[in-house]
Order: sequence, then C-alpha cells, then structure tokens
Amino acid sequence: MTRAFILSVSLFALATSAVAQPAATPARPTTPSEVVAAAPASAWRAIPADDLLIIELKNGGRVVVQLAPAFAPVHVANIKALARGRWWDGAAVYRVQDNYVAQWGNNESERPLPEGVVAKPPAEYTRPLKGLAVRPLGYPDPYAPAAGYALGWPVAYSPKGGWANLAHCYGSVGVGRDLSPDTGTGGELYAAIGHGPRHLDRNIALVGRVIEGIDRLSSLPRGTGDLGFYKERSQDVPIVQARLASQLGAAERPSFQYLDTRSASFAEYLRLRANRKDAFYIRPAGGVDLCNAPVPVRRAP
Amino acid sequence: MTRAFILSVSLFALATSAVAQPAATPARPTTPSEVVAAAPASAWRAIPADDLLIIELKNGGRVVVQLAPAFAPVHVANIKALARGRWWDGAAVYRVQDNYVAQWGNNESERPLPEGVVAKPPAEYTRPLKGLAVRPLGYPDPYAPAAGYALGWPVAYSPKGGWANLAHCYGSVGVGRDLSPDTGTGGELYAAIGHGPRHLDRNIALVGRVIEGIDRLSSLPRGTGDLGFYKERSQDVPIVQARLASQLGAAERPSFQYLDTRSASFAEYLRLRANRKDAFYIRPAGGVDLCNAPVPVRRAP
Repeated sequence: MTRAFILSVSLFALATSAVAQPAATPARPTTPSEVVAAAPASAWRAIPADDLLIIELKNGGRVVVQLAPAFAPVHVANIKALARGRWWDGAAVYRVQDNYVAQWGNNESERPLPEGVVAKPPAEYTRPLKGLAVRPLGYPDPYAPAAGYALGWPVAYSPKGGWANLAHCYGSVGVGRDLSPDTGTGGELYAAIGHGPRHLDRNIALVGRVIEGIDRLSSLPRGTGDLGFYKERSQDVPIVQARLASQLGAAERPSFQYLDTRSASFAEYLRLRANRKDAFYIRPAGGVDLCNAPVPVRRAP
Repeated sequence: MTRAFILSVSLFALATSAVAQPAATPARPTTPSEVVAAAPASAWRAIPADDLLIIELKNGGRVVVQLAPAFAPVHVANIKALARGRWWDGAAVYRVQDNYVAQWGNNESERPLPEGVVAKPPAEYTRPLKGLAVRPLGYPDPYAPAAGYALGWPVAYSPKGGWANLAHCYGSVGVGRDLSPDTGTGGELYAAIGHGPRHLDRNIALVGRVIEGIDRLSSLPRGTGDLGFYKERSQDVPIVQARLASQLGAAERPSFQYLDTRSASFAEYLRLRANRKDAFYIRPAGGVDLCNAPVPVRRAP
C-alpha cells in the first residue's frame, strides 16, 4: 500500500519557512503557498529587531515571538523591560493544557520586577479602530461584528463601536492574569496551542504571536494538574534565557518579514485560502475563518 | 508573584473527563462546565461498543476513537473490518505535522487488506440532510450555508442543497487519501491536532473523533520531513494493537457517553459557550464557532 498523503500543506508550516520560487513559472499560482512563494520583495515588511523576543529553552528549543506594540503598548513595553532585566532567565514553562495553551514565566516566585515594569498595566484588550486600515476578511465572524487584517495581524473589530482587537489564533501570545483584569504584568505569558480560543478575545491582553518554534511548545507533555499545570516542579521545562533580537549581536540576530496584509499578494492568498481547488481539493468552501488564513511570516531571504 | 492563571478550562479537557456535581447547588450554573456537570442522566447517550476503536501505542499511550457510521458507513465498516483483521497491530504513527494532523497506519507497506475491506470506497464526503434533526449553531459559519449539531456530532449543512457533512475540528479523525477521492480505504487515518482544518470539509472522508487520549498524539514530536512525515522509520511511534471495544472482554471494555445535542442541557451549554460571563470573563463574545463548542463526551459514570 502506498503512502496515503494528505497533500494540503499546513499554512502555519508554510508561513514560517522561506519558500523558494522557481525562476520561470508562467502559470498563475493556484495554491496559497504558491502565491506566497511568488510574492514580490515589495510585498514583504521587515519586523523590527526590537519587536522580536527570543526564548531559549533548556531542552534545546528556541521560540521566537513577534510583539505587537500597536495593540498593547504598555504590556509590550513591560515585556521589553522584562527581557532587558533578564526576568525569564531561569524561568520555566510550567503549564501545558491540551488544545489550549502553553504558559511560562516565574510562577509562584517572589522575584522582584525589573526596573521600568508597570506593575498594574491598563486592560489593553481593544484599541481604536481608527488608523488601522483594515483589510476585511470578507466572511462572517461569529465573535465580532467583523474580522480582517491590519498591520500584519488578524483582528476582530466593530466599525460602529470604533474598536479593534487582536484575535486569539494558533500561536497567539497573551498575558496570564488573575481575576482582576489589571493583574497581568507580562511576566507570565501563554501561547495558544490548539483551536483558536477566540472566546478569550477582549478578555485578556494579547501581545504578539509565535513566528518560529511553536512546535517546541505544542509538543511538550501535557500537565496533569488542574488546567494543565505541571504537578511537580521537576516537570517544568526550564528557560535558559529570553532576549530581544535588538539585544543580540548582528551575527546572532535573526531577521523576519511578514506579508503586507494590504498587498495584492495577500489578497490573492486570502482568496485562495477560501477557495481551494487544485489537484487535491475538489470542493472549495467559498469561505474561511480568520485563524485559518494566518499571515505568512518568513525568515528574511 | 502568585500564579497567573488563565482560569477558563479547556472545553476539550472538560468534555473528556467525568465531572462530579456537588449535591446541593441551588444557583443556576453560570459556566459551560457547570452546565455539563449538572446535566441529568437522561441527557447522556451511550456510545455503542462497536463504535469505539481503541488504539494502544507502544509508548504506553491509549487513544480512543468514536466512529461515525451515520456519516461514512462504508469507510466505518472498513475500519471495523480492519480492526477485526488486526491491520493496525504493528503499524505506526508516521506523520505529525504541527497545527495540522497526526497520521497512522501501514504506510509504504505491502500488507494485504483483511477480508471484507472495500478497496475503493465511495467518496463519503457528505450525506443527505434528511433524517438528521440538526440543532443549529445559531451563528454564521464561513465554510457552509449553516452549521450545527446532529446525532452528537458537529456538522455543516445546506438546507437548500439537502446535504450535511461532519466538520473538521480538533480531534476529528479522517481517512488519508491520494489525489483521487476514492483511494482511501480507512487503513491510513489522521487526527486533527491544531486549529480546526475546516477547508478539508467535503474534500476527505471523516469517520469519527478522538474522545480520549488526543494528547498522546498532539504531544508527539513533529516530523521534519515534508508535510510532517517522520524522516526515519526509527522515529515512528509503533502501535501495539487497535481493537473495537466490542472485541474486548466486559472487564476491559471502556464505556463512554455523549451529551445529547437535542437536550436542554446542550442548548444551555451552547448558549454559555457563546456568552461567557463569570468571575473571569468580562465581555461575552455573543457568538462561538462550531469547533469551539465541542460536544461533551465522558466516561460512563
């Protein structure tokens, strides 16, 4: 019996790997991945080194988070101060809940916050819609009046209410908090590792997304305590260090780009994600949900 | 610093564990998990032992799949014949693609199919809507004219077209195939381990869902070959055996139930999944997507 493929390539895998485009392909791209591979250099936007948080796990894994200062400026400033203050050096991943989140930080520690960290940031759950120039998804969203993309991020928004929020999708990074909405500093972070937990939208501060190494979190053993917490500290996955790319020397500094969500390439990518028809796909859906058309990200070529 | 909780319990974790209900709770349940815990015995439906496929992994993991004969009868009959013919004994999980699928079977093997297995089943991608008595989700679905629940399963459907299909959500189990839609026997199966890949709906045969042990698949190391295939056979995760629960003796036979999707308890569960407001949730979404309100399943009490 020959290998029974599912031929469709995961978009997330695609989005996080550079794809070489053959020199001469006169035919119009027919798959989302072909569109991304064919996108001109002008359609890509560099991610500032100061917006990249690089987390080195003791097990050899590396997780790169792109921060979103346009959506949660106080929390993101905190995270940068925490990285500069070496807050996560010696911290750990202490919670992995299946189909939900992996969470890390200095849990149950009395470690003092580094200088410059705002202990009680405001609840940055939405921001003004004004200034975002959203590209609409074009399909209904059950969680908000509308959904789309802005500044390279998936967003939900209300034209009438004048607000927008980052959406909880696979790989989204947010700020753990207690019951009171202002108790999260950014010191305890989580990444979504299952179906996009959109019910958390507007209830918790999202600060970015994992753009490389999400599999190093999603493949960790699940915690057997309540809510997926590891029961024993020996199960924790230690963090060697977390640094902003801007803190690293030029030689070690990784460089990433995202596909401009206002570009024609992104529009075509989105169209094909919603209407897949190729050698494998027989019946295009004629629609797609926000989290199933993630913004392509790649290492700078 | 105290533990920074995300207090919301993953629905999937909830759905797959029996929840004890305190004897006296006069207050109306305010969370989906409380509603499930308070559901009367009459709201639960037994899953037939002949619809349970139990896969024992060599690493000690156990994965239980509930089959869906009402949606893909020929493929499900094949799977039962394959289990009775010991097809998966000595097979392996050979593909784990992040945010997509884990896949198992007798890949690249010349092993003959057991007696009674239809080599080329029809493309069971939809079934007639008639006879399903669907409970509508009540919120828009980007992948089909409508979405809802029928016979304890998440479905997309077209009232006008008269068809319905099982929906690809976290834990859904489908039949790997080549390009031609009739090439999957059911011998090679996959489970969705990331954001619900709804774009596969109506393009591939879904045959069931993992109701216990999905974490044993979702936490496996990701394959580094194309599409997440393990590059070396030494990376494969061997399967000791796969049996229907009906093949086991009464003492070893597990017993599961699902929450009747026509019950008042399910209606209230769904309402609260779409309108979360409690000690943690501040702003209810007023909506939910099909895969984010999974049908609760539990071990029979």
